[in-house]
Amino acid sequence: MSTEATEATEATETAAAVAPQGPHGYSSHKADHLKRLRRIEGQARGLQRMVEEDVYCIDILTQVSASTKALQSFALALLEEHIKHCVAAAVEEGGPTMDEKVAEAMAAISRLLRT
Amino acid sequence: MSTEATEATEATETAAAVAPQGPHGYSSHKADHLKRLRRIEGQARGLQRMVEEDVYCIDILTQVSASTKALQSFALALLEEHIKHCVAAAVEEGGPTMDEKVAEAMAAISRLLRT
Amino acid sequence: MSTEATEATEATETAAAVAPQGPHGYSSHKADHLKRLRRIEGQARGLQRMVEEDVYCIDILTQVSASTKALQSFALALLEEHIKHCVAAAVEEGGPTMDEKVAEAMAAISRLLRT
Amino acid sequence: MSTEATEATEATETAAAVAPQGPHGYSSHKADHLKRLRRIEGQARGLQRMVEEDVYCIDILTQVSASTKALQSFALALLEEHIKHCVAAAVEEGGPTMDEKVAEAMAAISRLLRT
Repeated sequence: MSTEATEATEATETAAAVAPQGPHGYSSHKADHLKRLRRIEGQARGLQRMVEEDVYCIDILTQVSASTKALQSFALALLEEHIKHCVAAAVEEGGPTMDEKVAEAMAAISRLLRT
Repeated sequence: MSTEATEATEATETAAAVAPQGPHGYSSHKADHLKRLRRIEGQARGLQRMVEEDVYCIDILTQVSASTKALQSFALALLEEHIKHCVAAAVEEGGPTMDEKVAEAMAAISRLLRT
Repeated sequence: MSTEATEATEATETAAAVAPQGPHGYSSHKADHLKRLRRIEGQARGLQRMVEEDVYCIDILTQVSASTKALQSFALALLEEHIKHCVAAAVEEGGPTMDEKVAEAMAAISRLLRT
Repeated sequence: MSTEATEATEATETAAAVAPQGPHGYSSHKADHLKRLRRIEGQARGLQRMVEEDVYCIDILTQVSASTKALQSFALALLEEHIKHCVAAAVEEGGPTMDEKVAEAMAAISRLLRT
């Protein structure tokens, strides 16, 4: 495995240990999500080509904005399914479970806003 | 070439036609930039694995925030070199060239802020 | 009424016509919200003083970042209560009402992200 | 002086001690800046009225997004003048002064991006 992918993989392993087991709310749209992410991977490769070919800085920055927007759209799609499924299930259970799930979703939204 | 990379490539070609010819201000840090971008590409692959393995949504969102932050750091590094070299050169020339370059940089910063 | 407040007032009137009647989820923390907002209003007045007194641009920008962060914290607090109350109530009702409420919350989150 | 304005005032005083004395690049557009900021102050007051009148949460969030956008537009206008004047003057001086001024501007842009 390439070194640059290590961080994400470690996150995966930690997550597997502490988080609810899948399938999750987003699983029914897996194909769509993977398509979006392959596109984002392609944009990251496109950025490398632009740097290698000495493309004008401002044009590279435009492409960075497009990639950031694509990542945010993916995050919003995932979050919508999370609220519809995981948060909705916690709401039906009520009590502390609901409060925890909503607080967890809010922390994720806050991290998205702060980047 | 994979379809998902087409958009970035087209942007490259357009840029080559209208933008100043390289090497540009960022060229002296090419190796650093390429390393950052390979890491971002690795994160995009890591996200695909997370979706395939039904990792918990919130953990995927945390990884998306990390990728967005990495893209923004790359953009800020590029922008700093752009201001130090291209904008500084335009400032020395003065007049409309300077105003155009500064307006162009501001439009790029505005696009980064709005994503 | 001062002219600069007109836009917000019009939004209020439109909202009153189409949106669910209050009190809403956030109503129980009204005093906290009003305290935060008075502080943000004070920051906006502080920014005017800084401009009038020719304070250094970078120090004004630092204060703008603080005000933006304060607005986002207020928005996150409001959104959390909205999800716990309005969205939770819609989840219990289920069906199209839930989907509409979640879509409406996602659109609000998206607007916050895009600014 | 009202308590909520204290923070901004302290920032002003610190700035006066360490930052270059005005007038600065933005001084020639003072009237425009003050008009924008009075509008933002009016929006903050409009938000208080919305909370007091139990307006629907989503409509308040829409108004928060508008205020955040207005603050960012003000920041971009100020930054543009800063680059055209203070950074341009530092570029003409060259050497460490230029590097410091560019680094300072980049830190301000980074703070705007992270909020």
